[in-house]
Amino acid sequence: MLSTMQDGPLSLANLLRYAASVHADATVTTWTGATARRRTFGELGTRAAQLAHALRELGVGTSDRVATFMWNNTEHMEVYAAVPAMGAVLHALNIRLSPEQIVFTANHAEDRVVFVDGTLTSAFEEVLPRLRTVRHVIVVNGDAAGFRAPRGVEVHDYEPLLAARPGAYGFPVLDERSAAAMCYTSGTTGDPKGVVYSHRSLFLHAMHVTTPAAMGLTTGDTCLAIVPMFHINSWSLPFASMLSGASLLMPDRFLQPEPLLAMMEAERPTSAAAVPTIWTGLAARLAAHPQDISHLREVVVGGSAMPVTLMKTFEEQHRVKVVHGWGMTETSSVGTVAHPPARATGEDVWRYRMSQGRFAPLVEFRLKDDDGALVPHDGKSLGELEVRGPWITGSYYSPGDEPVEAGSFDDGWLRTGDVGRISPDGYLTLVDRAKDVIKSGGEWISSIDMENDVMAHPAVAEAAVFGVPDERWDERPCVAVVLRDGEADSVDAAVLREHLAGNWAKWQLPERWAFVAEIPKTSVGKFDKKVLRRQYAERRLAFVRLG
Amino acid sequence: MLSTMQDGPLSLANLLRYAASVHADATVTTWTGATARRRTFGELGTRAAQLAHALRELGVGTSDRVATFMWNNTEHMEVYAAVPAMGAVLHALNIRLSPEQIVFTANHAEDRVVFVDGTLTSAFEEVLPRLRTVRHVIVVNGDAAGFRAPRGVEVHDYEPLLAARPGAYGFPVLDERSAAAMCYTSGTTGDPKGVVYSHRSLFLHAMHVTTPAAMGLTTGDTCLAIVPMFHINSWSLPFASMLSGASLLMPDRFLQPEPLLAMMEAERPTSAAAVPTIWTGLAARLAAHPQDISHLREVVVGGSAMPVTLMKTFEEQHRVKVVHGWGMTETSSVGTVAHPPARATGEDVWRYRMSQGRFAPLVEFRLKDDDGALVPHDGKSLGELEVRGPWITGSYYSPGDEPVEAGSFDDGWLRTGDVGRISPDGYLTLVDRAKDVIKSGGEWISSIDMENDVMAHPAVAEAAVFGVPDERWDERPCVAVVLRDGEADSVDAAVLREHLAGNWAKWQLPERWAFVAEIPKTSVGKFDKKVLRRQYAERRLAFVRLG
Repeated sequence: MLSTMQDGPLSLANLLRYAASVHADATVTTWTGATARRRTFGELGTRAAQLAHALRELGVGTSDRVATFMWNNTEHMEVYAAVPAMGAVLHALNIRLSPEQIVFTANHAEDRVVFVDGTLTSAFEEVLPRLRTVRHVIVVNGDAAGFRAPRGVEVHDYEPLLAARPGAYGFPVLDERSAAAMCYTSGTTGDPKGVVYSHRSLFLHAMHVTTPAAMGLTTGDTCLAIVPMFHINSWSLPFASMLSGASLLMPDRFLQPEPLLAMMEAERPTSAAAVPTIWTGLAARLAAHPQDISHLREVVVGGSAMPVTLMKTFEEQHRVKVVHGWGMTETSSVGTVAHPPARATGEDVWRYRMSQGRFAPLVEFRLKDDDGALVPHDGKSLGELEVRGPWITGSYYSPGDEPVEAGSFDDGWLRTGDVGRISPDGYLTLVDRAKDVIKSGGEWISSIDMENDVMAHPAVAEAAVFGVPDERWDERPCVAVVLRDGEADSVDAAVLREHLAGNWAKWQLPERWAFVAEIPKTSVGKFDKKVLRRQYAERRLAFVRLG
Repeated sequence: MLSTMQDGPLSLANLLRYAASVHADATVTTWTGATARRRTFGELGTRAAQLAHALRELGVGTSDRVATFMWNNTEHMEVYAAVPAMGAVLHALNIRLSPEQIVFTANHAEDRVVFVDGTLTSAFEEVLPRLRTVRHVIVVNGDAAGFRAPRGVEVHDYEPLLAARPGAYGFPVLDERSAAAMCYTSGTTGDPKGVVYSHRSLFLHAMHVTTPAAMGLTTGDTCLAIVPMFHINSWSLPFASMLSGASLLMPDRFLQPEPLLAMMEAERPTSAAAVPTIWTGLAARLAAHPQDISHLREVVVGGSAMPVTLMKTFEEQHRVKVVHGWGMTETSSVGTVAHPPARATGEDVWRYRMSQGRFAPLVEFRLKDDDGALVPHDGKSLGELEVRGPWITGSYYSPGDEPVEAGSFDDGWLRTGDVGRISPDGYLTLVDRAKDVIKSGGEWISSIDMENDVMAHPAVAEAAVFGVPDERWDERPCVAVVLRDGEADSVDAAVLREHLAGNWAKWQLPERWAFVAEIPKTSVGKFDKKVLRRQYAERRLAFVRLG
C-alpha cells in the first residue's frame, strides 16, 4: 500500500529558498581582524542566484565539481549555497593539506572551478600548475589581475562576476540522492579518500544538528563556526543555520586566541563548534586576559577528546558548557554527541560527558570482534565500531566506474577503524584505533588506556604501548617508556608493572618494557607505533622481560 | 554524479529499535484516575515485538490495516510501535465521530483488526455489526469474554495475546514511501477523507517536532499528550518521543480539568500539546484551585487559535508559555509554529505569537487568488494557502485504483481551503475559510475578521458575516446580528456600520444588515453560513440596506 504523501525531494535549493525568505534577517558575519562585515540570508539568496548564473556562464553543469580554497567567511557561504542548489558538486579543498595532497584531491575530484580567498592566492598559485582539470579560478576579496595562472586557466574577480546578474535563478529539481558536496579524508595513511554527500544526507544530517540532541540551533542563536568549511562541511553548520535561522559567525583567517576573543566580545555568539586545541588556546589567553564569554550557551568539540580539567575550567570559570561529539568524514560529521541523560547526577554526569556521546537516531551502530562476531553493548566489552545509516558513506568516490570499498565496509556497514565500548543506553567510548588495539588470547587491550596509565606515574615522561607477536597469546602488549630526567634509578619495569596492577587484570599486565630516549612520532606528532613494531621485529628495540 | 552515501530507508522499525535501546529508560505513563501505570521504552520494544508476533499469527500481513478505538495510553503506544514496524498500517479510529462516520471510515480503510479499550467496548459493540472487514477485536484492559461480537469476528484479550511470545521480532526492511499509518479528516462537509502517511513522512515530521522551531523535545522532557492519538497521530508525539528520548504522559480518558491537574501535580510534565478548549477548562479550574504548573516549560496548542487574554493568563499567572501551531490531517499536523523571531520585542512579540506561526523548513507555501495568480507575501494581501512538501498529502486514499483529488490539489500543491496572509518572514495569519471569504470587486474580505469586529460592539451578542451575490461587485458582505437583550433601541445598522468604519476601508463596509433572533449553527457549534446564504437567496432573511 502506497502512502498518499507528496513525493518531493529533500533539496538544498529548497533549503536556500526557505532561508532566504523565512529567515531573510539572519546574518552571516565575517570577522576582518578589528571589525566585521555582514550579509543577511536574504542577500545570501540573491547573491547565490547571481553566482549560479555566473557559474552557468562559465560552463558549470550538473555534477561538475566546483572547489573552494577558502577560510570560513561570508563568500564561502555563498558558494556553499549556490553550488549544490544548481546541481553542481561543492568540493571544499583542505588548505591545511600538503601541496601534494591538495594536488591529489583536486585532480581526483576533477575540480573545474576553484574559488580562492585573496589571502590564499600565493599558496594556491603554487599548486595550480599541477591541477589537470581546473579551467577557472575565481579570486574572492583579492586581485585577479595579479594572479599567476598557467595557460588555459581563466582568472576572475568574484564581485564583478556577480555584479548585474539576476537575483533569482531557476534551480533545478534534483534527485535527492544526487551528489551535492564532497570531502576527502585527511589520509594519514595512503592517499586521501573521497566521500560524496547527497542532498538527502546533508539535509537529514543538518536537521539532526538543529535538534537538542546535537546543538539545538534556533532563530536568535549566533553560531560561531570555527571548524573549517573544508573540514566535513564545517560539521553541516552552513546547512543547519539555513534550516533553523541561526546566524553564522565566521572567523576567516583569525583563528588565534586574541582575535577570536576580540570577535566574541564584539559579536557575542551563543554557540560554537571547534576542535579542542582552539579551546586550549582560548583558556590560556583567558587566564591572562579575563573576559566574559558566558554568552556561549554551549560549545561542541570534536576531532579528539577534550581533557576533563579543561572542560571543567570552561564550565566553572567561564560558564560555558563544552560538549563532546564524535564523527568522521565518512559519517557527515555527527555520529554521537555527549549530552548526559537527564537522570545522571554528580560525577556520573562527567562520566557521560567524557564519553564520545550518544548515537543519533539515524546512526545504527554495532561492535564486532576479530572474528566478525557481535560484541555486546554492556559498557565493558571492546569491539570495532561499525555504523550504518542515511548519512554514512557506503563506499569511497572513484572517478572510474568502481567505487572504492576495500576493507572499509562490512556487509553495508562502515568499519570505522575505531575500537571502543558502548553502554546499554547508547553512549560510545572509544579506546583505540583498530590497528593499535592489542589482541591477546581472544581479549582486547586498549593501547591508549594502558599508555595513559603508565604516563600517570610521576617518573614517566612519555610511554607508548603497542602489540608484539606472541606464540601462545597471539599478541602481547609491549611498553616503550621515556623516563623523566634523573628518574632512571628510582623506577624499573617491575615498579611500573606494579603501578598498572591497580587498574588492570593480571593477564593484561605487559611483560616487555623498553626504556628509550624518545618515542618515534608521526608528522602530526602522534606516537608512531608502526615504527616501534618494526624496531621490535628487527630486534632493534632493547627490552626487559618480566614474568 | 551519485553520492557515495548508504541507501537505507527512513524506517519506523529502526526508530523503535533505537528508542528501545538508547532510550530504554524513557517511559510511557498512563494516568488511571488517582495513580499512574508506567512502562519503559525498553519494555515498549519487547511488547511491540510480542504484539507483532501475535498480529502475524492472526494473519496480519504487509499493508493490512490495523485499527485502534482507544484513548491515549501505554497500550495504544505499543500498537503505534508494533504495527508500522511490521509493515502493516495503523488506523486510529476517531472515537468522537458519529457511529455512521466510524462505520464509514473503518469500512473505507478496510480495517481487519481493531484494538478497543475496555472502557470503550460498549460504544464499539454498537458499530461492529456494520464493519464489513473486521475479523479480530482485541480488548485492552477489559474483558473479551463479555464482548458481544457478530459471527465471524474473533475477540481476544490483549495481555494473554502477548504473553509468552518472543521479545524480539525480525521487522522487515520497507520502502520508506510505503504506508505506515492513516487518518481521516473530520469531514464537516461530505464523507471523511483518508490520508495515508508513509514511514518517510512520519519520520521527517517527527524529526521536525523535536527541533526548537517546533517543540524542542529532548531526553529529560516529559511530554503530556492530550491531543488524541486518533487526531493526526497525536501530532506525531509518539514518534517524536521515540526519536528524542522524551518520556510520554498519557491522560487516558481523564480529560477533565480536575484529573488533568491531579495528574500534572503527580507527574510534572515539561511540555504538552492540546487544543485550546482544554486550556480554557484548566484556567477556570486553576482560578478556583491554585496549583503550580510552571513545570510546563512550553505548551503547543492547535486546531484553533487561543484568545490572547488566556495565553497571557498562562504566561503571567502560571509561568507557562503557550505557543500556537497550525496544521491539518493533510499536513501530518505541524505546518507552522508561532515562536516569535528573536528580534521581536514588546507587543510585537504578541503579534507574532497570535499568528498561526512560522512555516517549517520542509513545508513550501504560497497564496493564490481566485484567478490562480500568486499573491505576494507582504503581510497584507489575502489568498488561499497552498502547501507542498514530503509530509503533505498529494491525494486522498481510495480503496480503488484512482486516488481522490477532486478540487483539493493544484498542480502538486495541497489547497488548504484556508484564506490568510503571509508576512515576508514566513508567518501565516489565517483569516477565513476559502468558502466563506467574501470576494468583492476582485478584493477579498475576511468574514471572520469583520464579524469579530461587529461582535466587539457592546450591544451585539453574536454576528455572522457572509457573502451575498451582487451584480456590480460579484459579492458583498451581509451581516446577521443578534443584539443583546434590551439593546434593540440603542443601536441600528448605521451605528454598527459606523463602528466598523475605524478598521475597514469604505468600500469594504457592508450595506446589508439583518437583525435576527439567533444565528444558525452546525452540529459542532460553528456559524452555519450555508444556511444563512440559503435564507438570503430564498428571500427568507429580512435585512436593512444602507448606502
